[in-house]
Amino acid sequence: MNLIEKTIGKEEIFEGKIIKVSRDTVELPNGELATRELVEHPGGVAVVALDNEQNVYMVRQFRYPFQQVVLEIPAGKLDPGEEIQVCCIRELEEETGLSADRLDYLGRFMVSPGFCKEWIHIYLARNLTVGKAHLDPDEFLEVETIPLDTLIDMIMRDEIQDGKTVIGLLKAQEFIRREQ
Amino acid sequence: MNLIEKTIGKEEIFEGKIIKVSRDTVELPNGELATRELVEHPGGVAVVALDNEQNVYMVRQFRYPFQQVVLEIPAGKLDPGEEIQVCCIRELEEETGLSADRLDYLGRFMVSPGFCKEWIHIYLARNLTVGKAHLDPDEFLEVETIPLDTLIDMIMRDEIQDGKTVIGLLKAQEFIRREQ
Repeated sequence: MNLIEKTIGKEEIFEGKIIKVSRDTVELPNGELATRELVEHPGGVAVVALDNEQNVYMVRQFRYPFQQVVLEIPAGKLDPGEEIQVCCIRELEEETGLSADRLDYLGRFMVSPGFCKEWIHIYLARNLTVGKAHLDPDEFLEVETIPLDTLIDMIMRDEIQDGKTVIGLLKAQEFIRREQ
Repeated sequence: MNLIEKTIGKEEIFEGKIIKVSRDTVELPNGELATRELVEHPGGVAVVALDNEQNVYMVRQFRYPFQQVVLEIPAGKLDPGEEIQVCCIRELEEETGLSADRLDYLGRFMVSPGFCKEWIHIYLARNLTVGKAHLDPDEFLEVETIPLDTLIDMIMRDEIQDGKTVIGLLKAQEFIRREQ
């Protein structure tokens, strides 16, 4: 079956510091026209930092869209042209002060592919060394460590609700299972 | 530590059929001002439909932001005022023709809480009855069944990259493990 939508027109709506918004016109597989609202985002990298006692470094920060403090794995936006592993190392160091001797790539995901062009990449970081955090001047967050098993239980009780955090922790659990 | 950001101003940028965009001014915990780009979305429901042989009903559809066909679990946007379980039953029936005698709620997640106010809710559907799909006139997709174990392997090889699909399948696997 032909599933492809062909772009016929693009109306630029907004170019912000982080996102870009357009309203596009597409031709559907049946030849009819439809509108697609599109948000483009530079993407980001998130990291499950696991110490030798199976504790994960977690951050709590205020998330403006939801007006609440959210428990997440450390993460950040890709700088223009930045390599994803460099972003991972940078964000982990900035938010937690950690450096890692071992990084395994756990894959990437589309946050909401119906309207949003944003990839988030996830790493598992191990063999950690603790240093001092260097937050951006407009970044306010708290760091704590929580056992991986406890975090998986919290996910299954719906107490962890950030997408990249749920994916990172469940993939890390499965990745470690498959190593054993 | 005080982590709260207080809204000082809101500039409405765009109100589309699906998303709403604004640029807000906030007061940070240290008293300085900052800008927050905000996308609001009605949210949606996704469903892991598992038959008695442990196969999952999957859909393939063109995702405009990524210009590619993506393998996903069935899902759809919430209609205004629609109850999430009603949306789950409706979308499952529309996209696959299935009805389910048993629904378990697997929780919800924020797709990208840095800028986007969108929740996606996920159900596990079992005891399925096969009927006829009723797609929206602008919806084009293909349905196929794939064993849950195969899908988990595909996730770990980074071959499934839709966020709600990764979360739904990994949570379903963990949910079923905990039932046994």
